[in-house]
Amino acid sequence: MNAETSLDLSLLGATEAAAALSGGRISSEALVQACLARIQVDEERVQAWAFIDPEYALSQARAADLRRREGKSLGPLHGLPVGVKDIIDTEDMPTEDGTVLHAGRTPPEDAAMVSMLRAAGAIVMGKTVTTELATYSPGKTRNPHNPEHTPGGSSSGSAAAVAAHMVPLAIGTQTNGSVIRPAAYCGVFGYKPSFGLVSRHGVLKQSRPLDQIGVMARSVEDVALLAEQLISFDESDPDTRPRPRPLLRETAMQEPPVPPTLAFVKTPMWKMADVQCREAFAELVAYLGERVEEFKLPVGYKDAWKWHQTIMEADLAKNFELEYQEGREQLSETLCGQIERGRRVRAVNYNKALDQVPALSSGLNQLFDLRYEAILTPATSGTAPQGLESTGSPAFCTLWTLCGLPAITLPLMQGADGLPLGVQLVGPRGGDACLLRTARWLVDRVQPD
Amino acid sequence: MNAETSLDLSLLGATEAAAALSGGRISSEALVQACLARIQVDEERVQAWAFIDPEYALSQARAADLRRREGKSLGPLHGLPVGVKDIIDTEDMPTEDGTVLHAGRTPPEDAAMVSMLRAAGAIVMGKTVTTELATYSPGKTRNPHNPEHTPGGSSSGSAAAVAAHMVPLAIGTQTNGSVIRPAAYCGVFGYKPSFGLVSRHGVLKQSRPLDQIGVMARSVEDVALLAEQLISFDESDPDTRPRPRPLLRETAMQEPPVPPTLAFVKTPMWKMADVQCREAFAELVAYLGERVEEFKLPVGYKDAWKWHQTIMEADLAKNFELEYQEGREQLSETLCGQIERGRRVRAVNYNKALDQVPALSSGLNQLFDLRYEAILTPATSGTAPQGLESTGSPAFCTLWTLCGLPAITLPLMQGADGLPLGVQLVGPRGGDACLLRTARWLVDRVQPD
Repeated sequence: MNAETSLDLSLLGATEAAAALSGGRISSEALVQACLARIQVDEERVQAWAFIDPEYALSQARAADLRRREGKSLGPLHGLPVGVKDIIDTEDMPTEDGTVLHAGRTPPEDAAMVSMLRAAGAIVMGKTVTTELATYSPGKTRNPHNPEHTPGGSSSGSAAAVAAHMVPLAIGTQTNGSVIRPAAYCGVFGYKPSFGLVSRHGVLKQSRPLDQIGVMARSVEDVALLAEQLISFDESDPDTRPRPRPLLRETAMQEPPVPPTLAFVKTPMWKMADVQCREAFAELVAYLGERVEEFKLPVGYKDAWKWHQTIMEADLAKNFELEYQEGREQLSETLCGQIERGRRVRAVNYNKALDQVPALSSGLNQLFDLRYEAILTPATSGTAPQGLESTGSPAFCTLWTLCGLPAITLPLMQGADGLPLGVQLVGPRGGDACLLRTARWLVDRVQPD
Repeated sequence: MNAETSLDLSLLGATEAAAALSGGRISSEALVQACLARIQVDEERVQAWAFIDPEYALSQARAADLRRREGKSLGPLHGLPVGVKDIIDTEDMPTEDGTVLHAGRTPPEDAAMVSMLRAAGAIVMGKTVTTELATYSPGKTRNPHNPEHTPGGSSSGSAAAVAAHMVPLAIGTQTNGSVIRPAAYCGVFGYKPSFGLVSRHGVLKQSRPLDQIGVMARSVEDVALLAEQLISFDESDPDTRPRPRPLLRETAMQEPPVPPTLAFVKTPMWKMADVQCREAFAELVAYLGERVEEFKLPVGYKDAWKWHQTIMEADLAKNFELEYQEGREQLSETLCGQIERGRRVRAVNYNKALDQVPALSSGLNQLFDLRYEAILTPATSGTAPQGLESTGSPAFCTLWTLCGLPAITLPLMQGADGLPLGVQLVGPRGGDACLLRTARWLVDRVQPD
């Protein structure tokens, strides 16, 4: 059988595609071509891409194929196309940060993580749409499941492109809910590793204590495959640390030594969860039976959202000062409002907010030490809202982002409206590999073969 | 010859004493007894100690001697008495932070560095006087060289105690100039390692990005001996990093591979240097000939003092909020002024100040890469000022503290007033061992045997 003609290669997951590439059953060129064909068909409807040059993507793929034929050493992502959020610098493509103020911006070098992608053999397919400066004001992307609904943000294009089979893999970033939320709304797997695992050198800075990198794919194994290649110590990112790279994929594919117990945490944001979300979670919790226990966070956690806002807005005000000073009229009202509030934050309150994080985190760590492998919680307050003027609420991500915990959303449910609904699992900081193992276990449990 | 009777053991340097202890020629009890005798004679005049219990110090010494006689394993500081600044927690002695607001404070556990001291075999001799909350308002200590002059601050007691031979070793802290300045004024060696080498867990917090630990002794070898034992990775101090402990003492005692070239940097604070300081440095630079070249910092460095103040005052305001809210009338006017200015600092400006540090540091690193082993610069603007109402200016330390560079002051000169004048050497961040080697080279060059 000739795989290249009988099968739409864009349907392959990354792990499958990597195996087929490595076995010589498909070429990277054919895989990229299949993805480009998807883009050709659906891009007008989905609008996932800020920049794509089909010929250039194909030329990278042909180079990868040549390298393989020459018997040169290959990385784990060899020949796989990856979408890269348009706030992550690429030396060979523009990086425009979702604002006309940065139109035509061509960074002189790749972000650290893009270098790592290329070193692992990946094809940088193109740049995916971000919201304005990765904040709340939407880009052009639509939800592939229903173009009248938001894809979520800020990593809108990455989530939509993976959902629409335009790429098997994509990279996003999260300062509040910008990986988990679009992944959940678009019905893909989104994984945000622990704070400090992936270097942010060459990525648009919103907030040093909050900015984190995440990945999207169509299975747990695929997010593990991609994320593992991004983890590194980088002197240019002062929050990364020298430590062994966790074996994400290997661990993710193992059986848990004992069936995990999950803590169902509604969080103080439960009041925002809509009826579809509440019903779906009631059903899921009932289905999982003794594997889930509801856990109520102590009352002190309710202020975490306020602390997060203080930090994020003060940092937006500092990091986007130039844009605000020189191009205010080109910025959205929402972002101007954030910046203006941020300018008024006192250093004392900013640092007090930062000081809360260790206590909040250590409370959550106790929960993991206690008996729970992971926290089970909604990824979003419901399915993707209708309309494109908002990217939905990040409220179900804020606490975990603030504490730098690893989180993954699994597209295991859907709402009465037929749109995907994400199940979020959250693990202890640094417990990424086991979190992915628990996630895979949960997928198997909810969707047996 | 019986060393214990024929020699005043308080005259021994730490390295000599360690060798005599290790060779069984003296006991720790005799050494501590000799130091206590010094304290007995001079404490009324010098006032170096916030807490000292002679019997308890002797009992620690006897326990160390017993351990030695029993052939148990011993650390490099075995039996050596060390003075510990009274903002560093000790579980067996009060830690009162130089303010009546903390009178009677008895911390439940040792600071990380005190645990390391004890593990290395040191005797915690007592707690040395600090200025008010380690800021600018003086404690009771006087300069041993002339009690009408300030000993400098904030590690006043540590510097005075070492200078007066009350201990061979002491520990201080530096957020601006609090190790280098008192060491220089009191005529001892003061060494502040690179930011992040020594854990600050259990030390009064003034400012996370600025607080650093330092040591004092009466030779380069002795500061190296003590500091080496304090360096560690500690998860409780987020600014420490796992890395090999530098071989400070071994490197310090080596000959430099080539004669070092020093960059004489006057800094934008040169206008504060008094005539004694200017003349002494002119003489030193002339004496060192081609081993020194004057280097003028680019104009951007002049704002470093302002950035430092912004960070430090905003952090004082946060970290001493409770003291200010509940005990303002017991705080000095100076500190209240700092706190009140700090409360008004905006987060945006605080973070902008922090953002300057990498650029300032990288400029200085270029200087080290260029051709200079170390920066040669005054430790203070002159000798210890007359009067006890001020601890003198930290201006010649601010830039190096802000950038987290290692610095050492050497008591190589004196003013026309007969008081000591320190020569400060500053090295590249992480280049501590070579800095100490250069320092020892300079001592030998200026004071040949």
